[in-house]
Amino acid sequence: MPSYQAPLRDLRFVMNEMLGYPAHYARLPGGDEASPETVDAILEEGARFAREVLLPLNRSGDEEGCRLEGGEVKAPKGFREAYQQYVEGGWPSLAADPAQGGQGLPHSLAMVLSEMICATNLAWGMYPGLSHGAADALRHHGTEEQKATYLTKLVEGVWTGSMCLTEPHCGTDLGLIKTRAVPADDGGYDISGTKIFISAGDHDLAENIVHLVLAKLPDAPEGSKGISLFVVPKYLPDADGGPGEHNGVACGSLEHKMGIHGNATCVMNFDAARGYLVGAPNKGLACMFTMMNAARLGVGIQGLGLTEASFQNSLAYARDRLQMRALSGPQSPEKPADPIIVHPDVRRMLLTQKAFAEGGRMLVLYTAQILDVVEHGEANAERERAETLLGLLTPIVKAFLTEVGFEATNEGVQVFGGHGFIREWGMEQLVRDARITRLYEGTTGIQALDLLGRKVLMSQGETLKLFTKEIHQFCKAEADNPALKVFVEPLAKLNAEWGELTLGVGMKAMQDREEVGAASVDYLMYSGYVTLAYLFARAVKQASQSLEGDETAFYQAKIDTARFYFQRLLPRTRAHAAMVQAGAGSLMAISSEDFGCGFEL
Amino acid sequence: MPSYQAPLRDLRFVMNEMLGYPAHYARLPGGDEASPETVDAILEEGARFAREVLLPLNRSGDEEGCRLEGGEVKAPKGFREAYQQYVEGGWPSLAADPAQGGQGLPHSLAMVLSEMICATNLAWGMYPGLSHGAADALRHHGTEEQKATYLTKLVEGVWTGSMCLTEPHCGTDLGLIKTRAVPADDGGYDISGTKIFISAGDHDLAENIVHLVLAKLPDAPEGSKGISLFVVPKYLPDADGGPGEHNGVACGSLEHKMGIHGNATCVMNFDAARGYLVGAPNKGLACMFTMMNAARLGVGIQGLGLTEASFQNSLAYARDRLQMRALSGPQSPEKPADPIIVHPDVRRMLLTQKAFAEGGRMLVLYTAQILDVVEHGEANAERERAETLLGLLTPIVKAFLTEVGFEATNEGVQVFGGHGFIREWGMEQLVRDARITRLYEGTTGIQALDLLGRKVLMSQGETLKLFTKEIHQFCKAEADNPALKVFVEPLAKLNAEWGELTLGVGMKAMQDREEVGAASVDYLMYSGYVTLAYLFARAVKQASQSLEGDETAFYQAKIDTARFYFQRLLPRTRAHAAMVQAGAGSLMAISSEDFGCGFEL
Repeated sequence: MPSYQAPLRDLRFVMNEMLGYPAHYARLPGGDEASPETVDAILEEGARFAREVLLPLNRSGDEEGCRLEGGEVKAPKGFREAYQQYVEGGWPSLAADPAQGGQGLPHSLAMVLSEMICATNLAWGMYPGLSHGAADALRHHGTEEQKATYLTKLVEGVWTGSMCLTEPHCGTDLGLIKTRAVPADDGGYDISGTKIFISAGDHDLAENIVHLVLAKLPDAPEGSKGISLFVVPKYLPDADGGPGEHNGVACGSLEHKMGIHGNATCVMNFDAARGYLVGAPNKGLACMFTMMNAARLGVGIQGLGLTEASFQNSLAYARDRLQMRALSGPQSPEKPADPIIVHPDVRRMLLTQKAFAEGGRMLVLYTAQILDVVEHGEANAERERAETLLGLLTPIVKAFLTEVGFEATNEGVQVFGGHGFIREWGMEQLVRDARITRLYEGTTGIQALDLLGRKVLMSQGETLKLFTKEIHQFCKAEADNPALKVFVEPLAKLNAEWGELTLGVGMKAMQDREEVGAASVDYLMYSGYVTLAYLFARAVKQASQSLEGDETAFYQAKIDTARFYFQRLLPRTRAHAAMVQAGAGSLMAISSEDFGCGFEL
Repeated sequence: MPSYQAPLRDLRFVMNEMLGYPAHYARLPGGDEASPETVDAILEEGARFAREVLLPLNRSGDEEGCRLEGGEVKAPKGFREAYQQYVEGGWPSLAADPAQGGQGLPHSLAMVLSEMICATNLAWGMYPGLSHGAADALRHHGTEEQKATYLTKLVEGVWTGSMCLTEPHCGTDLGLIKTRAVPADDGGYDISGTKIFISAGDHDLAENIVHLVLAKLPDAPEGSKGISLFVVPKYLPDADGGPGEHNGVACGSLEHKMGIHGNATCVMNFDAARGYLVGAPNKGLACMFTMMNAARLGVGIQGLGLTEASFQNSLAYARDRLQMRALSGPQSPEKPADPIIVHPDVRRMLLTQKAFAEGGRMLVLYTAQILDVVEHGEANAERERAETLLGLLTPIVKAFLTEVGFEATNEGVQVFGGHGFIREWGMEQLVRDARITRLYEGTTGIQALDLLGRKVLMSQGETLKLFTKEIHQFCKAEADNPALKVFVEPLAKLNAEWGELTLGVGMKAMQDREEVGAASVDYLMYSGYVTLAYLFARAVKQASQSLEGDETAFYQAKIDTARFYFQRLLPRTRAHAAMVQAGAGSLMAISSEDFGCGFEL
């Protein structure tokens, strides 16, 4: 069975040494609660919960899957008990507002724990994970009554949430939804329609489920400007606020999927279900983005968690598996063959995983710090800057970390050779589970359009400049640092090129809007590689100052990993830059009909 | 359910127009049997068999899997009947030697049919597929008696074959095998040991199974120089040559795998099973490579087949699925949204699949022609050249086509969005099935070492020169062809760079053998991209001569696909070249112990 140890040493490096989390927390309102000692204790306890409670349920959950019995969904064995422990441990309320019973710790801390959960049991993690988006929507857009009724329960964790957006004929294009909301006499609404792909739409982990549902009012304008958001509980609250009468919403069937078998992906049927409007009528799309942005960061963290899980297990296998001698001569002559970690190509795969895990962790923690400022920053200007940066980084976190997460989990299978394809080793499950992360909460293509179209080009590049300026200043400040020379020089070049590529696409897009879509995914991947390069350079700066101490091996490995990243992963920007510049021409040339002329006779 | 139409038009283009197959076949001994009309008829009949018989069993075989009952393996429902039709249709004997009852048609033709089989039902295709390797081993190394006893049955298809190489502790490193062969009094051997990952090791499709088994003689030298090959039938032939007494070999258990559920992957237990030596004692490794080389080409074709299958189905979905408007304005204003094929990023994914399918097909057919010459070429010099080229191309076909096949099937899932993750659409099965192709018959890493180490560097680059010279001559001949300018110029540059990269690695490898392993996979991918670029340039040459005729759309689409390939896929060589040059340093820096210092406390 796969093993897992939370990367606590690496987390401490990134948080405490590199990104100055202790000072960051000290500046946040209520941040004195998040002392280094408290943070340490929380991380260690979270690590224990992930390893001891969640990890043992990962394979069995995958094998067993969910069942729909008598209209109710049963999660795999042990999932419910694990969730009870999670609630009893107070984990759901960690970063929630004390006004709703939360512990008021910074959101970034919850994101670190999320990495551990995703690394050990993604399918389980999505049950509490979906609650965050629902809670965010209610916190930002709900009435005081809705907060009192639903949000406190979500914060406590006794109820969970779901996000009901997709319908059979539309996922990306939510303007097409058909679910209807008819006003009732008492101020509520009757919701009717069918939603699909509803993660954690029904299950037996919690006593009630709070669905956040997109629907259309009778007089709604066409398209995405006519969408409203509703809260629709599975059980209507009774007089005491507990779960009362069963609402008109039920799981119609469960999807059979490639992975995340332990999570219930439901078709949800709403049959005049009682719902209540969240936010203003026809303004549901904005509310939805509140949920969605949190969810997108969460999915990026899933990519990171799976990368780390795959890395740790392929490392263990590569140290253990004896096969062939090193090309340069036997390394373990006393054994029948050398452990495969001696082979450079196996090391290339392991280092790819390691660099994406450590780079992804830096990206998540860098972004998490910005999110803390958005939520709690004191000065308006600081908050505004943070909000802009967060908007820029969110699609990168989501899409880049899931794309490379899929690659990393596949490298894990590859390190295992044929054994990687066998279910009992658990490596192929990580691939199957990772596959969804490139799709849900907006595919990589959608993230790329969000990044290049909405965030970068619609701001005339200003949003990007905020970030490239930070990188530029770092490069300038470290220009004479000999420890950083081989990092800062290529980084500065790439950073300048990033701006040029943006300008180039922007100019072309003025002639032809399709140029945006033609460049977008390569632009996003390019952005991700440069962003990680910046963070690795900062890590080297930090590590190179600590080489003389007790932990030389740790810091030297960090620098070596950065060197690997710069030499063996960052050159991929050469391909992406060329493709960004290639333009839309070769994509648009063939007509839909002629696409199939090799086989359609 | 997924659909499939064999790409007959494209096959005719590559075979008849571009690669001159009619003249090629006419030159082969007995090649007059393979007239264009006969070839056409065979391809059409093969296409029908694949679509009508195999395709409908692909999903059900995946869902049902294989069962081990009372020591015998049952393949999924319908597999046995499909195999009977296959045998009745005379397919197994198509390219076999008439001396053993074969039809004596060129091997290349069987490879074309193999693409169709892999595209429609890979798991099924592996039952007859494994027979080829076993037959090859017997044909090249078996005694006349062995040929009469086993080979004729394999050719006829009433018996199938298996390759029993891997053991629990060794796959790549076969020198470590523990299976023993003890000589008996009558010239036979008693084989004892355990083999794992034996594809089609047991099943109910045919009346007998001919296992080709690697084992060690009692006095065998250590390591790979002490391996011998044995033929071990499931049932010992009786006096009439039919299946008689059950031999001491049985399936101990079935592996649970990520994909190819319909194929039985067996643990095979040999308990003093009667076997017969094939080839000379202790020369089993050479015999094994005979099987292996055929099998490696076969696996490359699997990558191609899955690419085509995924392409066809995502194209159909992209034309059908309505979602969002084109960025440049509505394309189907009468519909609620535009079909997603209008979006440039969807087209990028479809074109990636299309280019890899068409490029892969050219590579397979180019290689297949060379294989025909190896097998039937008249002049010694011609055969020798062909053999050298085949050695160079085999690891590229195997590894490159499976790596890009995995990418292409994943793009297929991506085009489907969330629906791609749902089993009923069949797109995720193609990914799971494709995943094994990067692993079995030697992982991508092993193919890369074979290419760079054994084939290219051990010949001091001579083997490579044979091929780059051909490309060079093509570029020179077409230098003034205006239709080819944008293709020939970059191709010539890359072709020259290929030699320089080789020289660079070769020089470094003289100092440090690990440099070979450090460069190998990127070198292989680089080689694959350049090889496809050469073939696309030749395709453009051919297509540009036919633009004026009745099928302008077909030829224009071919040229446009080539342009896409050059602009949007070939730039990946920039990354691979940089990584080939990066050297072993950053790979070898971190010690095995320090690899885990971020999480091991």
